[in-house]
Amino acid sequence: MKLIIGNKNYSSWSLRGWLAVKQSGLHFDELTVPIMGEEWDRLKHDMGEVQPSSGKVPILWDGEAVVWDSLAIMEYLADKVGRDRFWPKNEAARAMARAMVAEMHSGYQSLRKEMPMNIRRRVQLADVSDQTKHDIVRILTLWAEARARHGNSGPYLFGTFGAADIFYAPVVTRFVTYGIGVPGFAEAYMDAITEHEWMREWTGAAEEEQWVIEQYEVAV
Amino acid sequence: MKLIIGNKNYSSWSLRGWLAVKQSGLHFDELTVPIMGEEWDRLKHDMGEVQPSSGKVPILWDGEAVVWDSLAIMEYLADKVGRDRFWPKNEAARAMARAMVAEMHSGYQSLRKEMPMNIRRRVQLADVSDQTKHDIVRILTLWAEARARHGNSGPYLFGTFGAADIFYAPVVTRFVTYGIGVPGFAEAYMDAITEHEWMREWTGAAEEEQWVIEQYEVAV
Repeated sequence: MKLIIGNKNYSSWSLRGWLAVKQSGLHFDELTVPIMGEEWDRLKHDMGEVQPSSGKVPILWDGEAVVWDSLAIMEYLADKVGRDRFWPKNEAARAMARAMVAEMHSGYQSLRKEMPMNIRRRVQLADVSDQTKHDIVRILTLWAEARARHGNSGPYLFGTFGAADIFYAPVVTRFVTYGIGVPGFAEAYMDAITEHEWMREWTGAAEEEQWVIEQYEVAV
Repeated sequence: MKLIIGNKNYSSWSLRGWLAVKQSGLHFDELTVPIMGEEWDRLKHDMGEVQPSSGKVPILWDGEAVVWDSLAIMEYLADKVGRDRFWPKNEAARAMARAMVAEMHSGYQSLRKEMPMNIRRRVQLADVSDQTKHDIVRILTLWAEARARHGNSGPYLFGTFGAADIFYAPVVTRFVTYGIGVPGFAEAYMDAITEHEWMREWTGAAEEEQWVIEQYEVAV
């Protein structure tokens, strides 16, 4: 099984796919590909023989299966190792986790655009649009509700580390990068994510990367 | 179990949620709510007592569970009635179906904006952006690959009617509404969707609705 990812400092969707494979406990090879280069073209050609990917990362390549979306990757892995490793066992909690993950998957366009993931940087944004403020408040509301209703068994959104944490982890790094002030409960949750073993592994690698992509370096 | 949906002529995400509940075979009550009106405000307040929804439709309300996204609704239902009712049994087919559904869930922004669902109308668009053309080609490519690789057992994307058909059904109605010329295999697939019993039920109701939303009435 091979996971193809982009630059660790910038690619928030790669982080999600990578955390999902880690969470599965399955062995995988990791391949970082400089998007748009020759290596990428060759890889797309090879994968195209198996199945048409979208030309985006992350991609999970597992024999006959090519899975080209991070949520689909997570569900593909949950099919293999059992749903309970990713999703809460309680039905109401699982319903909420599924809706939160789906909202992250398709939403928060404004926050994603104005505050691109940039793990090694610290920026104080001069101005943030109303829509991005709305996104931030919405996310904090969902975190608060998940923690209060279903988070008793541990420090993560639904207690133990799972799908919702995997999907919101790149939001945690954004809040750190852009110095977003958050209430105490959110700070505690963000600390738990930041100190998670896999997050330290990923952010350590991101710090060491030399590649700079200008379009993600927000001006202040 | 109650499914809250918007206007049947325009709300493509409502159609997905509704088809998912139909596919589950579970009994459900259906509630069409004129978004932004008083009834909607009251409903949001009542649901807020249970869980924070996003203020969008569709929403599945099942006792303690409020599921506010169509993909999450489908997975919630698959948890209840078994994965095989929605997803292909073959692993490689299921991987592809999952990736296609995820791509529909978060992608094709250009097509969705320029060609809003409008079931009862027939429009010849004067001009379509390159990005929308790209979306159309991408969708036709995915349909072709799914049909060719995994569609032997029936007329739908992966043979029998399932998750991928539920998610691409509103694209079928768009291609009909805007008179998009498609190759023969796609025409056959679109006919199968259009003639599906549940689609006829939905489009029949859409035809009868009187409500007109100007912003979805694309000018020609």
